[in-house]
Amino acid sequence: MTHSRTVELEGHIIDSGMLQQAMGLVMDLEGNFDIEQFDVGTHKEAESYCRMDVMADDEATLQEILHELHQIGANLTDPVDAELVAAPADQVVPTGFYSTTNHPTQVRYEGQWVDVENMEMDCAIVVEDGDSPRAYTKVLNAIEEGDLVVTDEAGIRVDPPERPRDNSGPFGFMQGGVSSERPSESLIRQVADALEQTKEDGGNVLVVAGPAVIHAGAGDDLARLVREGYIDMLSAGNGFATHDIERGLYGTSLGMDMETMEHPRKGHKHHIYTISEVIRAGGISEAVDEGLIKSGVMYECIQNDVSYVLAGSIRDDGPLPETITDAVEAQNAIREQAHEADMVLMLSTLLHSVAVGNCLPSTTKVVCVDINPATVTQLLDRGSSQAIGMVTDIGTFVPSLADKVLDDA
Amino acid sequence: MTHSRTVELEGHIIDSGMLQQAMGLVMDLEGNFDIEQFDVGTHKEAESYCRMDVMADDEATLQEILHELHQIGANLTDPVDAELVAAPADQVVPTGFYSTTNHPTQVRYEGQWVDVENMEMDCAIVVEDGDSPRAYTKVLNAIEEGDLVVTDEAGIRVDPPERPRDNSGPFGFMQGGVSSERPSESLIRQVADALEQTKEDGGNVLVVAGPAVIHAGAGDDLARLVREGYIDMLSAGNGFATHDIERGLYGTSLGMDMETMEHPRKGHKHHIYTISEVIRAGGISEAVDEGLIKSGVMYECIQNDVSYVLAGSIRDDGPLPETITDAVEAQNAIREQAHEADMVLMLSTLLHSVAVGNCLPSTTKVVCVDINPATVTQLLDRGSSQAIGMVTDIGTFVPSLADKVLDDA
Amino acid sequence: MTHSRTVELEGHIIDSGMLQQAMGLVMDLEGNFDIEQFDVGTHKEAESYCRMDVMADDEATLQEILHELHQIGANLTDPVDAELVAAPADQVVPTGFYSTTNHPTQVRYEGQWVDVENMEMDCAIVVEDGDSPRAYTKVLNAIEEGDLVVTDEAGIRVDPPERPRDNSGPFGFMQGGVSSERPSESLIRQVADALEQTKEDGGNVLVVAGPAVIHAGAGDDLARLVREGYIDMLSAGNGFATHDIERGLYGTSLGMDMETMEHPRKGHKHHIYTISEVIRAGGISEAVDEGLIKSGVMYECIQNDVSYVLAGSIRDDGPLPETITDAVEAQNAIREQAHEADMVLMLSTLLHSVAVGNCLPSTTKVVCVDINPATVTQLLDRGSSQAIGMVTDIGTFVPSLADKVLDDA
Amino acid sequence: MTHSRTVELEGHIIDSGMLQQAMGLVMDLEGNFDIEQFDVGTHKEAESYCRMDVMADDEATLQEILHELHQIGANLTDPVDAELVAAPADQVVPTGFYSTTNHPTQVRYEGQWVDVENMEMDCAIVVEDGDSPRAYTKVLNAIEEGDLVVTDEAGIRVDPPERPRDNSGPFGFMQGGVSSERPSESLIRQVADALEQTKEDGGNVLVVAGPAVIHAGAGDDLARLVREGYIDMLSAGNGFATHDIERGLYGTSLGMDMETMEHPRKGHKHHIYTISEVIRAGGISEAVDEGLIKSGVMYECIQNDVSYVLAGSIRDDGPLPETITDAVEAQNAIREQAHEADMVLMLSTLLHSVAVGNCLPSTTKVVCVDINPATVTQLLDRGSSQAIGMVTDIGTFVPSLADKVLDDA
Repeated sequence: MTHSRTVELEGHIIDSGMLQQAMGLVMDLEGNFDIEQFDVGTHKEAESYCRMDVMADDEATLQEILHELHQIGANLTDPVDAELVAAPADQVVPTGFYSTTNHPTQVRYEGQWVDVENMEMDCAIVVEDGDSPRAYTKVLNAIEEGDLVVTDEAGIRVDPPERPRDNSGPFGFMQGGVSSERPSESLIRQVADALEQTKEDGGNVLVVAGPAVIHAGAGDDLARLVREGYIDMLSAGNGFATHDIERGLYGTSLGMDMETMEHPRKGHKHHIYTISEVIRAGGISEAVDEGLIKSGVMYECIQNDVSYVLAGSIRDDGPLPETITDAVEAQNAIREQAHEADMVLMLSTLLHSVAVGNCLPSTTKVVCVDINPATVTQLLDRGSSQAIGMVTDIGTFVPSLADKVLDDA
Repeated sequence: MTHSRTVELEGHIIDSGMLQQAMGLVMDLEGNFDIEQFDVGTHKEAESYCRMDVMADDEATLQEILHELHQIGANLTDPVDAELVAAPADQVVPTGFYSTTNHPTQVRYEGQWVDVENMEMDCAIVVEDGDSPRAYTKVLNAIEEGDLVVTDEAGIRVDPPERPRDNSGPFGFMQGGVSSERPSESLIRQVADALEQTKEDGGNVLVVAGPAVIHAGAGDDLARLVREGYIDMLSAGNGFATHDIERGLYGTSLGMDMETMEHPRKGHKHHIYTISEVIRAGGISEAVDEGLIKSGVMYECIQNDVSYVLAGSIRDDGPLPETITDAVEAQNAIREQAHEADMVLMLSTLLHSVAVGNCLPSTTKVVCVDINPATVTQLLDRGSSQAIGMVTDIGTFVPSLADKVLDDA
Repeated sequence: MTHSRTVELEGHIIDSGMLQQAMGLVMDLEGNFDIEQFDVGTHKEAESYCRMDVMADDEATLQEILHELHQIGANLTDPVDAELVAAPADQVVPTGFYSTTNHPTQVRYEGQWVDVENMEMDCAIVVEDGDSPRAYTKVLNAIEEGDLVVTDEAGIRVDPPERPRDNSGPFGFMQGGVSSERPSESLIRQVADALEQTKEDGGNVLVVAGPAVIHAGAGDDLARLVREGYIDMLSAGNGFATHDIERGLYGTSLGMDMETMEHPRKGHKHHIYTISEVIRAGGISEAVDEGLIKSGVMYECIQNDVSYVLAGSIRDDGPLPETITDAVEAQNAIREQAHEADMVLMLSTLLHSVAVGNCLPSTTKVVCVDINPATVTQLLDRGSSQAIGMVTDIGTFVPSLADKVLDDA
Repeated sequence: MTHSRTVELEGHIIDSGMLQQAMGLVMDLEGNFDIEQFDVGTHKEAESYCRMDVMADDEATLQEILHELHQIGANLTDPVDAELVAAPADQVVPTGFYSTTNHPTQVRYEGQWVDVENMEMDCAIVVEDGDSPRAYTKVLNAIEEGDLVVTDEAGIRVDPPERPRDNSGPFGFMQGGVSSERPSESLIRQVADALEQTKEDGGNVLVVAGPAVIHAGAGDDLARLVREGYIDMLSAGNGFATHDIERGLYGTSLGMDMETMEHPRKGHKHHIYTISEVIRAGGISEAVDEGLIKSGVMYECIQNDVSYVLAGSIRDDGPLPETITDAVEAQNAIREQAHEADMVLMLSTLLHSVAVGNCLPSTTKVVCVDINPATVTQLLDRGSSQAIGMVTDIGTFVPSLADKVLDDA
């Protein structure tokens, strides 16, 4: 074990689990450590400090360990500038490129720590030099030949948000994981409070919605929340928008009458015809203008200047003219929404929620609601430390949330 | 194919699917049929009539086919008396005993059709002769040596309830199976209407409840329904009752504080201590009397003379003194409840719902609510033609149901 | 009820349930019927014939009923030519367009019944006149201004495949729906037989595969089936292909070592780097040529000229150069695969399986395997009468299938 | 904050997470701490030591905190004897009784640390004094008036097993939780190795099996494992045993033919008749003797002196004579099995697995297999640190396990 470097950890490193994690991964990766200094916070407000020597049998292993330690916030004591290598071609990263976490990150450039903009996980970091150097994330697809891409593990600082110590904040309450055996009404109350708080603070609320929202009869209540100004952006697919519009046109959603719950058998024809009619009108906005669409979530979005992204999918009918059918373009549009959002409500859609979640920094508040526990777990696993998961019925969740928020208003 | 018998089917045999089923099973069992007469109901109110010869290669197969035809309501044209054989020993049925469906059934005894009492599936039928002969179901366990048990397939008539032709009734709306993508609020409205109607008609409402009802925060709302007279009987387990009482005593349910949703770590100790304290008092009723239990579902049951059965299970702690730990005794108590019920609400419990469902005739209204679609499907498959399944969150379902029912009152 | 038309049904209309369905939907849609002639097949090989007058209060309802009756194979006795209306604009269907089922269909054009080509559900039918008139399906997206689109319900004949009467065929065995409580090994044996039979008959086998196939360790076995010539086409996404290639390059799949099951923490970086390297090489085929990719499913596809479609999605990283990112283009590529397939294996992917399933006629054999029963149910509900669903572990299913098929060879 | 006590933690307290947990719960319970001494293990083999003062505003809170600290292994520095209070009545615990974890535990009695026998969670500890004092767990039900029950938190030492540091052992591989996206064949290989190792070491293997094992076609393979001596005990219910015997008698399992997968419609009658015949014979063992039962799991258990417990349930038919219908008696029988087991295989049964799991100390190896992830999660949450969960198909798992184990033999 001749290869070694010194790292330091600071903050609530014991009770946040950071120290345990650091030791664990050194050992998992077959390294070793030697603690040089350890100042323990002797009471609960006090921060701790730990400096340790990390060792490995070979340089490759050491680099791997150091990379992992970075990701959880253990930084080198002897910071050097980040290594920059020009991308060899468009959409090609240099060997050993640094792949981001979704936590706030800085890179060291000419002796200065520069904040990385638009944090998002699994990206490369590109540095733009000049008088005021900038650093930002780029997805693989956006890499251009010659981009200065950060490689290796040196000169990078990651600062994972610490879990709130008390349970008082609205987003403190889901620390015990996901469960359907929880008092749903109390949880919805807390989501309502967080939503109101976000709006009071001038924040942006993004709703990610699947077609089940409409099928489950929650369309009107979501429309109310849009109309009353609680929703700033909508991220959905062609299916959601079509079901919502179909419901306005025919009172059906993929063929089920929303009042009587009967299936007029021409259901799917309604679906196709709805799309056809919107295409004829020239788009959703034009269909609203000409009076074809008179109610619903999409209607309220247009009337209230709520921006929306409809991302295409290979299972779409149609699609509607506004649907972005190219996956890369759609991701870019979703990325923009994600970066502007302060709070995100993910309502019964795995595909769109994953797409949005992939672009979110770990500091954004996320509420994820689905009747399928596997969906909720998969979304929460992606690593927002401010995420709430609820396994509940979207058809009772949205009405209850709208009632609570609008009663408070 | 020399072995044959003639059967007849009457009623809405085409649109109810009975004729299709009959033909299907003859063919599945490698028999054949020859239709002798077929009078089709030429419009939707008209009943049809079909008489057909059923054939098989050997007598055993023919008997098997006839047995199956019976179960769906195809009866022999040349009725003979049912064959009665004395049970050879306690809990032992004669060879070839007739195993019941859960549909209304008659047996022919000395030339008369006698209604079978207490219909329930997978039972034997015992005939008591005398001046006014009676026939009733007996589970295997209750068979006594010498009981006259119906065997073979002759002399038995089954009359499966026909599916309602229109969708207007409260129990017509789930004919398309189980789905979580349905307008929950509308469905709950219909369940509320059916509950009110049952009470108006003087019927008995049985609630089958699992511990999740309490965990999910729905205990108060279920207690309100009991207090206001909408529930006549409760079927649950030791877990449900203990969580409900624990919540009254400590504000926790298996250790989770129902207001703050924090887990005081002594949770499970509360659970054991709750049981211990009720044992000390001498029982739930005594604990209510001495003021230990002041609220909750069990409290309201005792205050409002709502009878309850707490059935034991091998995963119970304690259990509470009222728990019936013997499975056979518990089944008998459940059987009595099931036979008295006109409407059954099954709330988030597979074990207890299966136990109750096993004892229900196919004419009882059943509403089954669970967040797990597999549970709902499994319960509905057991064959009530008047069953409604809802895949939704029990923690929002019960409050919403209570609000609707009590607002109407 | 003054509006009426006469329809006829032929074949095994009782035991296939067609007659029941027909009567049911007339009544569901508030119509009435009067049976004029009914010749019942008096034994199990004999077909039946039914002619009935269908009535409704108004013409609109009658048309709706007739449309529905068509879809299940009840055709008008007095066939007229199908009504053709020119599409008013690109991607816009005329009012009242006929929306297809996935069953074999004919349209009547100038007194002749013309088979509709490329049957697929939820499409319009376009007729091309001329000396030998043709009719084929078009999705909304492909409709061009002036296309002669079939509207209304007249002049169309639908012929739903009848369920096999006996259980002897390989695809007869799932008639009882989906269940995880079935003898898996016997079912896999039957899938193996069907696969071998399809190849013997010169048919094409399409595999639709999700990334879980690789994660679950079944990549090698799927690769064996490709190498040995049992798979003709592959339909997947960027994720599947990347995981498969990553496994070859690094022995990991999204970061999990497939032998030791440890998570080298740089996992996700491997994923991005894999894509980057394939982009650098110029594509998968080029990466095989230059020796970068040496094994795996994609490798075998290229070495054995198995055509593949990689459809993009908004949750993709990268993507790989071969990925079709435009949803409409991807659907077209998938449609072509679907039309050429005689047997389809859907392995652990909902998104891609729905996309493929949307394009399949009801006569194609489909086997759908997933550990989540909801996925299997959703796919089977789409209406292939030759579909088999298995709720099982893809990580044991593919190895077991490969063993059986290759042992037989 | 005037109330305080001093506790100490020893061992791999950082990387095992014990220190983090300790600090966390002090803060969660609104206490505070002051670290007096902290000797950190400076390399990965070195143990750490921490002594800290724990403070709270009132004595009750302090006691609560100390209780919780105990449970994770933080012990008082100034040990006193455990407080013993006589139980006031049968099945009634004294106020403040100590409720056990499932970890190895000692109580201090007259200055000596006495190991608590038969560790099991949620029990009381009873001390028997005399020359060689003993301490053992008692469930509430077994408490007798006058039993000396440990109360409060002092004088008790808990020693939770530390998680293995490396991944090399057979039970190290599931530390990342439950997932269906794992290489199943490799996992089964590891379970096989663990099973063989347990037998080599002279350990006892307990199988807990649900009826799905038989339905899924895995009965023969489980029977082989019994016959070849790999299974020492069986814990199941009436359903499992009846399905297994029915399969031997009729080739069906609840009515499904296991070879042809057809449902002979008399299925459920077979089930009842099977029970009736076993009752007639006088029991399973007698039915084997008289040649009625000739194969299957129960047959092999009897032929190979494998002891079994059949626990009754309220959903049972019959039940079979050997079924223990009283839940408390059944728990006692299960408890005995659990205490003798060194390795437990839980196969597709939630009810019986929970019942067994409740009685297991945290040092027993547990493998839990189910196709439903919720079942696996629920069982692993109960706290064995040596538990493996697999979400897979029991119908392919058991055959694959049997093949691997018996091939190795």
